[in-house]
Amino acid sequence: MNSSAFLSVPIFYQGVKMSKFQGPSPRKMMRREVEEIPSDSDSDDGLVDSDDGLDKETRDAIFELDKFQAEIADLDNKAAKEILEIEEKYNETRKPIYAKREVAIGKVPTFWSKVIMNHPHLNMIIDDEEEDVLSFLVKVEIQEEDNVEDGFCIKMGFNDNPYFENRELVKVFQLGGSLLDGFVEPTTSSTVIKWKEGKGQDLQKKLEEIIQKRKGEMTSFFDWFTGDKNPDDDQVADAFKDDLWPNPLIYFLHQGGMEEVEEEGEEEEVEEEEEDDSDGISNLGRNESVEEEKE
Amino acid sequence: MNSSAFLSVPIFYQGVKMSKFQGPSPRKMMRREVEEIPSDSDSDDGLVDSDDGLDKETRDAIFELDKFQAEIADLDNKAAKEILEIEEKYNETRKPIYAKREVAIGKVPTFWSKVIMNHPHLNMIIDDEEEDVLSFLVKVEIQEEDNVEDGFCIKMGFNDNPYFENRELVKVFQLGGSLLDGFVEPTTSSTVIKWKEGKGQDLQKKLEEIIQKRKGEMTSFFDWFTGDKNPDDDQVADAFKDDLWPNPLIYFLHQGGMEEVEEEGEEEEVEEEEEDDSDGISNLGRNESVEEEKE
Repeated sequence: MNSSAFLSVPIFYQGVKMSKFQGPSPRKMMRREVEEIPSDSDSDDGLVDSDDGLDKETRDAIFELDKFQAEIADLDNKAAKEILEIEEKYNETRKPIYAKREVAIGKVPTFWSKVIMNHPHLNMIIDDEEEDVLSFLVKVEIQEEDNVEDGFCIKMGFNDNPYFENRELVKVFQLGGSLLDGFVEPTTSSTVIKWKEGKGQDLQKKLEEIIQKRKGEMTSFFDWFTGDKNPDDDQVADAFKDDLWPNPLIYFLHQGGMEEVEEEGEEEEVEEEEEDDSDGISNLGRNESVEEEKE
Repeated sequence: MNSSAFLSVPIFYQGVKMSKFQGPSPRKMMRREVEEIPSDSDSDDGLVDSDDGLDKETRDAIFELDKFQAEIADLDNKAAKEILEIEEKYNETRKPIYAKREVAIGKVPTFWSKVIMNHPHLNMIIDDEEEDVLSFLVKVEIQEEDNVEDGFCIKMGFNDNPYFENRELVKVFQLGGSLLDGFVEPTTSSTVIKWKEGKGQDLQKKLEEIIQKRKGEMTSFFDWFTGDKNPDDDQVADAFKDDLWPNPLIYFLHQGGMEEVEEEGEEEEVEEEEEDDSDGISNLGRNESVEEEKE
């Protein structure tokens, strides 16, 4: 009944944000079958209690329903597998283009730091001190496992810099694979940062203080990097993998990327109107155009 | 830099929530190509200003980069089309099973109201008065357009009830199709509710008051139903279409569906630990197991 809470709660299913355009993700669908559908639906065990007070007809209908759900889950699984195969096929096809893109990016000074600082979500976790570190970032690469369900890693290459010895920082996201093929708990791990004396250790100490002060909240870029948040719901990783990586150029060219570009056009207007759109009274009962089928 | 804001902001791209497991949605990918990639990338116009202070090598690299992005977008589009075809194929295959499921559901009294009230997100917008209305709900159906990008509708069938004359309420979500095939602005529309005198008009008036009081927030079931929120980001519609509809049985059997089921097992523990997991200090520099490639 807490309606105000609703808007701030994204719809999650097993920790996976839902995308309406393609229904449940393949990964989600596979999990659903294994975890949700009672495996032995011919038996009475587990589905409804024998003392649930339901009459026989209702109980029979529920078991029938359960069988249809198993059939639907079976189709979901088949669809998920076909979709994963397509994704894997195109991941392979994109690889050589990404490789050529990397060469071109290498010719543009401070490309990646500019891109990250222009990204509306990523820049929110970059602390002032961290911004200077990012100016040494010369390479970003997302490598997916051949089976995309197994995971991916984010590799960041740095020039020689006063903060740490490492020339490459890697954060690995093991997504656990699919339940059907032997699911394991999703985990992350990351390169141990070798902070340099002076500027490096000063930053390390400063970040420790910031992180301690903001206990319980996502704090800074390196907090994200070294943290082990469940990769099933890591919005920073999402932003890197699904938004920055597919098209960093739009963030290089425009602060806020598409969001800002759109505001210059007309498209955004509709979404802005929507914000003030809860003049619900006039909406009640005066809605448009759908003919009723009955009556 | 406002790091606390970050966690409460889901990652949106063009108003579409991102799902990490399959990259951008097909719809999103198609939009990306059309809107983001300058259409005439051989020309100097638009991509970078001639007075941007960039040297020639950098400008050339940016144009080269733009061409690679166009190639990537082209592959994204092809992948999106193949994925949509699979989704449409399986939507057809699922239809007869859904039809049989509906017959079974018809034998279980108050199935849909129980399912909706047990759903952790949907029950948040059901007002006490509306809960009684839902007890007359006897049928829920999601119908997708043959081309899933065009949209879908949610049909709700009601028994004769003291609130309104309508036996069916329909909310239509026109998603606008794909940009490549002539995109139009997404819109919604819904059946005009014919409130009955007495209990019906009392409820109508009460809802109007509630909605007015909570101006600017999502308020109630009927506010959602009659409202015209952009269907690109309608979480209630998402919950119906992508969560309730694929498997209502789990919500019939368990309050909170999977979430509650899981808490009884061990799986949930990891996610709960994660909540208190920002003891960032000890994380800084002590992370596990990734070997560096250099050094």
